[in-house]
Amino acid sequence: MSLGENVVVTLFGESHGPAVGALIEGMPPNVEFDLEQLIADMISRRPGSGLASKRKETDEVDIMSGVHNGKTTGMPILLIIKNRDVRSKDYSFLPYQPRPGHVDHPINIKTEGAADLRGGGSFSARLTAGLVAAGSLSRTIIPSEWKVEATVGALGGLEGEEGIALAEKARKDGDSLGSRVDLVISGLPVGLGEPWFDGIEPALARALMSIPAARAVEFGRGVNAGTMRGSEHNDTWGQDMSLSDGADGALGGMASGAPIRVRITFKPPSGISKPQETFNQISGEVEELAIKGRHDPVIAPRARPVVEAVARLVLADLGVQGGYIDG
Amino acid sequence: MSLGENVVVTLFGESHGPAVGALIEGMPPNVEFDLEQLIADMISRRPGSGLASKRKETDEVDIMSGVHNGKTTGMPILLIIKNRDVRSKDYSFLPYQPRPGHVDHPINIKTEGAADLRGGGSFSARLTAGLVAAGSLSRTIIPSEWKVEATVGALGGLEGEEGIALAEKARKDGDSLGSRVDLVISGLPVGLGEPWFDGIEPALARALMSIPAARAVEFGRGVNAGTMRGSEHNDTWGQDMSLSDGADGALGGMASGAPIRVRITFKPPSGISKPQETFNQISGEVEELAIKGRHDPVIAPRARPVVEAVARLVLADLGVQGGYIDG
Amino acid sequence: MSLGENVVVTLFGESHGPAVGALIEGMPPNVEFDLEQLIADMISRRPGSGLASKRKETDEVDIMSGVHNGKTTGMPILLIIKNRDVRSKDYSFLPYQPRPGHVDHPINIKTEGAADLRGGGSFSARLTAGLVAAGSLSRTIIPSEWKVEATVGALGGLEGEEGIALAEKARKDGDSLGSRVDLVISGLPVGLGEPWFDGIEPALARALMSIPAARAVEFGRGVNAGTMRGSEHNDTWGQDMSLSDGADGALGGMASGAPIRVRITFKPPSGISKPQETFNQISGEVEELAIKGRHDPVIAPRARPVVEAVARLVLADLGVQGGYIDG
Amino acid sequence: MSLGENVVVTLFGESHGPAVGALIEGMPPNVEFDLEQLIADMISRRPGSGLASKRKETDEVDIMSGVHNGKTTGMPILLIIKNRDVRSKDYSFLPYQPRPGHVDHPINIKTEGAADLRGGGSFSARLTAGLVAAGSLSRTIIPSEWKVEATVGALGGLEGEEGIALAEKARKDGDSLGSRVDLVISGLPVGLGEPWFDGIEPALARALMSIPAARAVEFGRGVNAGTMRGSEHNDTWGQDMSLSDGADGALGGMASGAPIRVRITFKPPSGISKPQETFNQISGEVEELAIKGRHDPVIAPRARPVVEAVARLVLADLGVQGGYIDG
Repeated sequence: MSLGENVVVTLFGESHGPAVGALIEGMPPNVEFDLEQLIADMISRRPGSGLASKRKETDEVDIMSGVHNGKTTGMPILLIIKNRDVRSKDYSFLPYQPRPGHVDHPINIKTEGAADLRGGGSFSARLTAGLVAAGSLSRTIIPSEWKVEATVGALGGLEGEEGIALAEKARKDGDSLGSRVDLVISGLPVGLGEPWFDGIEPALARALMSIPAARAVEFGRGVNAGTMRGSEHNDTWGQDMSLSDGADGALGGMASGAPIRVRITFKPPSGISKPQETFNQISGEVEELAIKGRHDPVIAPRARPVVEAVARLVLADLGVQGGYIDG
Repeated sequence: MSLGENVVVTLFGESHGPAVGALIEGMPPNVEFDLEQLIADMISRRPGSGLASKRKETDEVDIMSGVHNGKTTGMPILLIIKNRDVRSKDYSFLPYQPRPGHVDHPINIKTEGAADLRGGGSFSARLTAGLVAAGSLSRTIIPSEWKVEATVGALGGLEGEEGIALAEKARKDGDSLGSRVDLVISGLPVGLGEPWFDGIEPALARALMSIPAARAVEFGRGVNAGTMRGSEHNDTWGQDMSLSDGADGALGGMASGAPIRVRITFKPPSGISKPQETFNQISGEVEELAIKGRHDPVIAPRARPVVEAVARLVLADLGVQGGYIDG
Repeated sequence: MSLGENVVVTLFGESHGPAVGALIEGMPPNVEFDLEQLIADMISRRPGSGLASKRKETDEVDIMSGVHNGKTTGMPILLIIKNRDVRSKDYSFLPYQPRPGHVDHPINIKTEGAADLRGGGSFSARLTAGLVAAGSLSRTIIPSEWKVEATVGALGGLEGEEGIALAEKARKDGDSLGSRVDLVISGLPVGLGEPWFDGIEPALARALMSIPAARAVEFGRGVNAGTMRGSEHNDTWGQDMSLSDGADGALGGMASGAPIRVRITFKPPSGISKPQETFNQISGEVEELAIKGRHDPVIAPRARPVVEAVARLVLADLGVQGGYIDG
Repeated sequence: MSLGENVVVTLFGESHGPAVGALIEGMPPNVEFDLEQLIADMISRRPGSGLASKRKETDEVDIMSGVHNGKTTGMPILLIIKNRDVRSKDYSFLPYQPRPGHVDHPINIKTEGAADLRGGGSFSARLTAGLVAAGSLSRTIIPSEWKVEATVGALGGLEGEEGIALAEKARKDGDSLGSRVDLVISGLPVGLGEPWFDGIEPALARALMSIPAARAVEFGRGVNAGTMRGSEHNDTWGQDMSLSDGADGALGGMASGAPIRVRITFKPPSGISKPQETFNQISGEVEELAIKGRHDPVIAPRARPVVEAVARLVLADLGVQGGYIDG
């Protein structure tokens, strides 16, 4: 459960266990720990408001190691976020009636019944709290010209207010909605990245596809590139090596100088209050299951800060690897 | 330039250097080396026919270590494919006039001029020969029920003969065309995979996005999931845990029992014979550049066996990790 | 700060920070968590009695993740041991007057002053508490025939009561004494291990040399092998492949079937109450420094359980690697 | 079979297969390839003269990738050394009569008979040719102030001419002799290294213990530290942080500024022409075995350049890790 080779983030915890969090290795020493930014970042992904579930978590981060006198020491940083608002009785139907679209059944088989399935256990989006905390820390080592910005691209295929209305409608129907987050990374030095499997695109694709419910990752013109001609698709090297903007923010794993545009599609949340059919392993019948609990109707708004965190962690890792950031 | 944690493939070589190839670590001992399959797999990606460039390579694989009496020894396997049909004078305009859509400029900056840029150097699709050879070897350790099948999904958005016609048209125009490969993985045991960053989807996304010219990776319903409702998207667990086919071949990084459907979009090849504008660093002007040499007009047909190879390597790696395959 | 490739233990914490501990990845699911054994193992390395410092730590281990219903879940296990009996004013002379034989000066330079030097910070033997806790957990996955036993070999070169008397004498003089731990690993299956850099001997040598104050690691006949002839040194393969006991418990990185005998020499603890000379960076003079605080006069008795823990972690790692243990 | 995290060397090949060699990843671009130094280094470990076996190998190194116009490109460097003087009939008694002190039996069990045992296969000291070649390359990236010097410390416990006489005597008796190599590393910047498991001492101990026949690694005062008192053992920080020379070249995994002194003890070579007893798996009896072939009577003279190579590779790796060397 580790991301990165140089700045390494390892997640731990279960949704209904004592805590979730992250262990971060490879942060250089003497980096100011920006507590206010950390609090702001944690709030940005917190449930309890708007298009998000009603689970209330303060998401206070306990810094257990690696920080001394308000600065990093260069040693592993352990961040713990205690779980408080846990209602485990909501999950008594598990593992006998696995929820459609959830990891309940595969993880139960994989661990031969040992996994803590309540609230998704270690697969819960709750663990993204640790990712966001780690991503917040990585801000301080990333050069200020390297910009990472994720926005909610579309809800149910619609942008802005229309999308929000669509999501509200789905919620009222006890249903959920697919969505998209748009990520733009700009200001990277030409050549940042690595060849082949550790390139910017593969590294981002891996990290972004590990966010729960991600179903597609597109770079540049994405799926549209599949219907274009080369003469139309190619960005050209203009005056002084400037690059027309769109297709080729990264080439062969390395930054080209143009913005890197990424789109991440999230499936509609699988947990809906509308009754769904699923197999009951006790009765041996397919039966209806109504999942109580607190559901997000759409993922993009809460995934947005996670996308940013993950992108920052990938850049921090590549930056140290390439010598752009002191490791 | 390594893929995998348990079965580790490291690529090496340059397009116009002495050789390309792969070093494979973690193959178990006593595995029959299927030379005929290797030859067949190498032929499937070879240039020189149909919608492919005219570079002629026999792509004979020299086995330099790790095989004894026709079986693996458990030690690192070195596969070397010598370069023969190399025409380096085609690239004399580099690095001063970087080709649009190519890695020439970023790699030149990254390596401060040291990289061998001829034919794309270490970033050339020529290095996929090593990937295909390694993928061929991995066939022998993957259980026979695990099926991996990649097909050419579309050329320029069209399937079958229509797509081929469109690609031929592009070639005649000195241009190129985008394309798509469809990958279906089936027969995996429920639970195969790992949580989070090493899950099936992140691992495949990373490996597939490292194939040159890949621009999008979609799982299940892919970008279409972004416009669906949960009640419509969710696959349900049917009788005896069977799963309706489509959305959820992998859940939370693990196989669910249903086929995993992946679509990989490739941009149109950047190298086209039609003249393109690019900056000339000597003259300080944007000038036309006509790239001679041998170009593929469309990527999917040649990428297809690479997609299969990459998918097999990911499965072999996860299979050893999970104890499904003896390491 | 990670040990292992398959069963991975990462240490964190500072001697005078909030806590120390370990994050353990790669433990298989459904392993009974033996709490009593854990308590017993923690007690075995605890300070506060006999030939150990007077620091009083209960060393209670908080299990923060990865354990559910008394069994492992297969997810990362976070173990935290809070620091309680901390007296930080003892270290006000740092970093200006680095203690002889301590890491104060190198770590201060390396981290440009950012490290928490109190009590040795992240380099304190206090962090071996996390190692011992992790080693305790690994007991449950190691086959019962694989025996790991470390004993106090010698104190100041003398065995048994004589050695203890010598150490007591050193303590009364405000001084300290060198020592040796003897480790015997037996019952391993022939062939356990890996070639070259990940072999049993290299892996043990690395892990054991990372225990604070270790200065030599010897295998088999150790330094004595340097004065022997081959005809005298070689163990012979006897009836039914039995091996005469002594020289060759591991051959080429793999278990041979005979016991693996290892000796680890520890230097005398650098922290002594007897005044020592050291450079004072403020005065620019070499001055006497008397280090108050609580010192161990000899290392072997407290290192003994750490040696066992480290050896178990190496074996667990190699066991999973080789398929002898379900990963 | 890989050493290093940043500069990664992977060995491959078999003693009686087509070739041995090394794949080196992580070498920075634009490093002059010093071919004359490479040739000199290869000659220094070559068999065929003095206290070495009579196997004749020219040990020419073929550079297959990663070097262009005489400089590194930053891509993986593949070095191949073809095997020429191979006499495989000498090993027809394997695997039925395993040689005492050799890896024949464990590797045969581990690989279920698949390994190529001739000449030690992948465990042969022949593979150190790849290590020496890789170490030669690493010279060019290591700062010139960092000095690495290994000398033959003792043969059979005796230094200089006396030791050589003792080894000659052993050879004439069809026997072999133990030996020691002394390694001194100086000029390192204070703080070079990492905490705990990746520290200088653990990293060197691992790498050195992987040299065939190594049996002990000692740092500073080594096994003698076990009989000393702290007041006697501690090096003191003198005027301007100079360090008295001897005990503490590395502290807590990091360079202290003083020379790091290491002693490596090698067992007497197991392959001797004098008949030895070993079990014959066909007859089921312990029988005499006289091993023909070409034997080294003592290891230190040929291990000396390997010790240097290994030490350089460890330093290059730590240097890149710590930012002292551009990666």
